[in-house]
Amino acid sequence: MSGLFITIEGPDGAGKTSVLDELYPRLQLTAKRAIVKTREPGGIPIAEKIRHVILDPGNDQMDDRTEALLYAAARRQHLVEKVWPALEADQIVLCDRFTDSSLAYQGAGRKIGIEEVAKLNEFAVEGTVPDVTLYLDIDSDTGLQRIMKNRTNQIDRLDSEGLQFHQRVRHAYLKLVDANPNRIIKIDARKRLDEVVRDCFYELLTRYPNYFQS
Amino acid sequence: MSGLFITIEGPDGAGKTSVLDELYPRLQLTAKRAIVKTREPGGIPIAEKIRHVILDPGNDQMDDRTEALLYAAARRQHLVEKVWPALEADQIVLCDRFTDSSLAYQGAGRKIGIEEVAKLNEFAVEGTVPDVTLYLDIDSDTGLQRIMKNRTNQIDRLDSEGLQFHQRVRHAYLKLVDANPNRIIKIDARKRLDEVVRDCFYELLTRYPNYFQS
Repeated sequence: MSGLFITIEGPDGAGKTSVLDELYPRLQLTAKRAIVKTREPGGIPIAEKIRHVILDPGNDQMDDRTEALLYAAARRQHLVEKVWPALEADQIVLCDRFTDSSLAYQGAGRKIGIEEVAKLNEFAVEGTVPDVTLYLDIDSDTGLQRIMKNRTNQIDRLDSEGLQFHQRVRHAYLKLVDANPNRIIKIDARKRLDEVVRDCFYELLTRYPNYFQS
Repeated sequence: MSGLFITIEGPDGAGKTSVLDELYPRLQLTAKRAIVKTREPGGIPIAEKIRHVILDPGNDQMDDRTEALLYAAARRQHLVEKVWPALEADQIVLCDRFTDSSLAYQGAGRKIGIEEVAKLNEFAVEGTVPDVTLYLDIDSDTGLQRIMKNRTNQIDRLDSEGLQFHQRVRHAYLKLVDANPNRIIKIDARKRLDEVVRDCFYELLTRYPNYFQS
């Protein structure tokens, strides 16, 4: 595959959605080939159904490992139906969350263990690793404050976790940055939105001149 | 856990359901402690929802690994909510299909690989292995003929597989019997129903005199 697989990661409240909303149009203007913005479950009907089971607040009996298996299932289907075909067609894929999220959230946040969740995800992704990952870093206090402010009307089962959970998630992300210095770029997400977007944009353009024109 | 975990396995058409319908009441009469008959998803709402995604004939884009992940997720939730609590309460659990089914169906039938599917299921079951497994053996021709005869009005996505698929499934089961001679008891399911039930009954009673009175 000669496409470019970009993922964006970060704890809740890091501002991924807002950043993507501004970053994506800019990338579209400069991309030298087709660019696809997606997120699991990505409009894939099977993955949407799986996500519905995961996020249903009525499913409060959900075991942590069940949840990890369901995320891996949705990830697999999204890869097969959407990501791999785009990469095979030499396109650029900009994906909101991928395996790193499961390592941080299920592995560390839920305390299943990062290694265990990594092995599970390997079954699902069969070696697919992003070419580059933009990690939006935010301290847990600030992240949680932003969630409370922005999402009061639509808190789902995963948002209703405590501060310690979010701290474990962030700590795991920072460990992933250390372990993958060539792949994961840490972006300071406490800055103003336009600055964060600019930082992401700059990193991609300087790294991939064959894919984006500056 | 000091309960007894019994599973029953076999290719489609082996007659598991009919055998269980006769075997279970007999076991109830002779069991020295409470006995629970169950099958994945076992009435566990989360697992039922997962099973609904797996079996929906509309989901014909389902990738083989997605399917294996979903089975493992349903298995996990059923274990957590139903099997483990019963075994911890020293009860006997009689379960229609378990990990061996995934090894045979997803590992061999779908050609993912038995080792790969075994590793995946280990994430879900965390070391839980049945104490004893009744494997109802049937050749693929006879098994398929029985399916066609009995289920013409309710064929689901998994039944509509070809003869070669069913042959791979049976071959995998026979390999599992060879690899686990102490756990898996091979029962000839071509016999008359009452004979198959008698064989199953006899094996359990002679093996587990502390759990069943003869």
